[in-house]
Amino acid sequence: MSKEITPRSEDYSQWYIDLVRKAGLADYSAVKGCMVIKPYGFGIWENMRDTLDRMFKETGHVNAYFPLFIPKSFLSKEAAHIEGFAKECAVVTHYRLKNADDGSGVVVDPDAKLEEELIVRPTSETIIWNTYRDWIQSYRDLPLLINQWANVVRWEMRTRLFLRTAEFLWQEGHTAHATREEAIEETRRMLDVYATFAEDYMALPVIKGVKTANERFAGAVDTYCIEALMQDGKALQAGTSHFLGQNFAKAFDVTFSTKENTLEYVWATSWGVSTRLMGALVMAHSDDDGLIVPPRLATTQVVIVPIPKPSEELTTVANTIAAELRSKGIRVKIDTDDQNRAGYKFAEYEKLGIPVRIGLGARDLANGVVEVARRDTKEKSSIALEGLGDAIAALLDNIHQTMYQRALTYRDEHTTRVDTWDDFMSVLDGKGGFVSAHWDGTSETEDRIKDLSKATIRCIPLDNPTEDGRCILTGNPSTQRVLFARAY
Amino acid sequence: MSKEITPRSEDYSQWYIDLVRKAGLADYSAVKGCMVIKPYGFGIWENMRDTLDRMFKETGHVNAYFPLFIPKSFLSKEAAHIEGFAKECAVVTHYRLKNADDGSGVVVDPDAKLEEELIVRPTSETIIWNTYRDWIQSYRDLPLLINQWANVVRWEMRTRLFLRTAEFLWQEGHTAHATREEAIEETRRMLDVYATFAEDYMALPVIKGVKTANERFAGAVDTYCIEALMQDGKALQAGTSHFLGQNFAKAFDVTFSTKENTLEYVWATSWGVSTRLMGALVMAHSDDDGLIVPPRLATTQVVIVPIPKPSEELTTVANTIAAELRSKGIRVKIDTDDQNRAGYKFAEYEKLGIPVRIGLGARDLANGVVEVARRDTKEKSSIALEGLGDAIAALLDNIHQTMYQRALTYRDEHTTRVDTWDDFMSVLDGKGGFVSAHWDGTSETEDRIKDLSKATIRCIPLDNPTEDGRCILTGNPSTQRVLFARAY
Repeated sequence: MSKEITPRSEDYSQWYIDLVRKAGLADYSAVKGCMVIKPYGFGIWENMRDTLDRMFKETGHVNAYFPLFIPKSFLSKEAAHIEGFAKECAVVTHYRLKNADDGSGVVVDPDAKLEEELIVRPTSETIIWNTYRDWIQSYRDLPLLINQWANVVRWEMRTRLFLRTAEFLWQEGHTAHATREEAIEETRRMLDVYATFAEDYMALPVIKGVKTANERFAGAVDTYCIEALMQDGKALQAGTSHFLGQNFAKAFDVTFSTKENTLEYVWATSWGVSTRLMGALVMAHSDDDGLIVPPRLATTQVVIVPIPKPSEELTTVANTIAAELRSKGIRVKIDTDDQNRAGYKFAEYEKLGIPVRIGLGARDLANGVVEVARRDTKEKSSIALEGLGDAIAALLDNIHQTMYQRALTYRDEHTTRVDTWDDFMSVLDGKGGFVSAHWDGTSETEDRIKDLSKATIRCIPLDNPTEDGRCILTGNPSTQRVLFARAY
Repeated sequence: MSKEITPRSEDYSQWYIDLVRKAGLADYSAVKGCMVIKPYGFGIWENMRDTLDRMFKETGHVNAYFPLFIPKSFLSKEAAHIEGFAKECAVVTHYRLKNADDGSGVVVDPDAKLEEELIVRPTSETIIWNTYRDWIQSYRDLPLLINQWANVVRWEMRTRLFLRTAEFLWQEGHTAHATREEAIEETRRMLDVYATFAEDYMALPVIKGVKTANERFAGAVDTYCIEALMQDGKALQAGTSHFLGQNFAKAFDVTFSTKENTLEYVWATSWGVSTRLMGALVMAHSDDDGLIVPPRLATTQVVIVPIPKPSEELTTVANTIAAELRSKGIRVKIDTDDQNRAGYKFAEYEKLGIPVRIGLGARDLANGVVEVARRDTKEKSSIALEGLGDAIAALLDNIHQTMYQRALTYRDEHTTRVDTWDDFMSVLDGKGGFVSAHWDGTSETEDRIKDLSKATIRCIPLDNPTEDGRCILTGNPSTQRVLFARAY
């Protein structure tokens, strides 16, 4: 157990922060609410970004870039958008500094006040739909399938690295369609892309569902989401995909002439995931010794450590093994440090969550084997040098599956059906996790449940079976269970 | 000649703007000073970014991400930095909006005023060196070789797409070293990376040099640059690499313990290129019919156009050819539009600057050939289907070389040695380009020359020969020629 990292059993929140900082993922910055993403964390984020970007392009999307700033008046154009959103924003009021008269530094130049304040984008629907008005005239201009990778700012008083920061990095897809059906299809397609990414790359099982009206994105007709469960029994929303109807088209007057030469408002979707996924990745898989990075996102998948330390002979073997692994597309690092003990290095690589460690010792090599340690289960085994590349490739796949299965088992064990308020509260206060319960379908009841329990409806799962029941709070009739949880 | 695009001879500035907008690279936005980078333009920028990113990683750098905001007080810590820089900035003063009392929309909440204003980063030396203080303790922590891809904001009243916008995208490398020599070596290494990128990918010949004190980055000891010449005879600074000495380490108190256990200030470099390169790419190569995109950065390198329109048979052949080209790593698009005439399509692809167009006609195919048109010279030729992949790969290389050579020839023809003030002015007012002339080495003279001629010293070329002469303005003795030009 790493001495730098608080054990989960002692303080889960502190464990998370220790891990993020000590493993070199991110850190606080001098700017309240903003984080620094450190090189190791940024490398994992780059792998997430590049994978998602490829998946977006394979589904026909292209990237573009829209302004960081949004004129204040734009935010009020879509009524629900401004009501439900975007009040806690960074506001730019001036565009120049000048030297202080007393020589003490610089001050804001009062003569350089903007006529209209600019808001640092908290999300880009408004500026993008204002632009789409010029880009869309005819059905021939549709669909428009655009994504943007960008930084956004939503002011936050309490910071939690990756999970809640004033500035974060994300992608936001903004698509425009000729029909309602096509836009809904796109909304669902991107939800599927997110779910596939979470499961196939992050080894993170997710539940696909739709949000209730209370939890819907401000300005959306429907918000779809993927919800994941963390090791402390709290849920985390890992991605959202919104069907926006014609709301933004109407707010920004974006119409198109149809094949039949009528004029109609354009249908819209938007969808996004953010650096928050880094928090999900850490909290879903790691342990008291450090990170456990899913192999397909690991910047280094295999580290080769000569034991007791690098020698000419061991380095030659290491290079040969590395070349074989790289030829199979595996990302390999050779440890060349000759200062620290092997035990210290092993602990460091465990802290970083490198999926596979290969120990190279002279005696093992004489027997034609190497010692292979997997990070997820900490099991060690001797593997023959002959065919090592294929064995390691298979092991990396096995680690992915094992991590996914472990998270799925945890989630299954922490998804509880309850039928009474007392059971509802005792599960939430006890083992936590998802609670599947009946709810009468009203926003008022949902609000009361949230006030009483701090749990929210995470989603109504897709393809949810209908089932007669009674609301756990009001006893009113209900036709389906929904998923509650306390959440990040 | 495209009717949408103003000819260069008529109005070079308008030609540039027409091209950028009509070819779908970028456009103005609703936010004064900010541009929208459109999908086609962003695709080319992605190729630039990915190529540079690979080159940075091959030279040992890693990416990270630092906050968008900089506390106002940070800017004044390095005296030259604030004096020479960073006055025209976007200033965040508030962090919340609220509903207007009269229901007219939203207003800035006066209660949510920041204690200290935040500046939207115009460049990140200050926030990064403030962070490095925590990251660097010992010589073992050095060198620190970090790059960031980010958006930055420098307020500009007059906007020119890509060339001068309030917000732009760039990368900024920020490295920390134990010795002066090592930092200078890094500064020069990254200048070489930029020059290689410009020449090998943008097909853009550049002159490597060092800036005079007047033109140096605020806070730098030395600023190195690459300078390119545009088709209108104006110079464009395409990248800079700064040796920062210990200036920022001293301003932010970043010290390290040496091997000998003494405490020293860290040595620094920073270096950057931006979306301005998109402007250079357009202006260096394009013509009155549209863009000419260098093949190695083109999002589509080859477009296959069935003539007169797609048929089942032609599409089958197109797919076969595309597969062969793709197997050689060539980016290919097949035109599937069956509405427009071939002539219209040809003009469109010329406007977009696709390097190679393959026309597929039934008669040519019967003869075992296709018609291949290259964008740079507009030459057409018949090329045999047999071995077409290799022929096209070679053609793309040839186009790159031809574009580079054409730009180099232009530059050579527009680099003039002059020895008198009259000749200096007549070259500047006449054919333009670089003017190689003697200068007495003083900032005062440089300022006067700039005032009188609107030309600046672009750089003192690296490995500049020494040569006795007389300053073109003052007649004072000079030991070397420097390169003047009017510039973007």
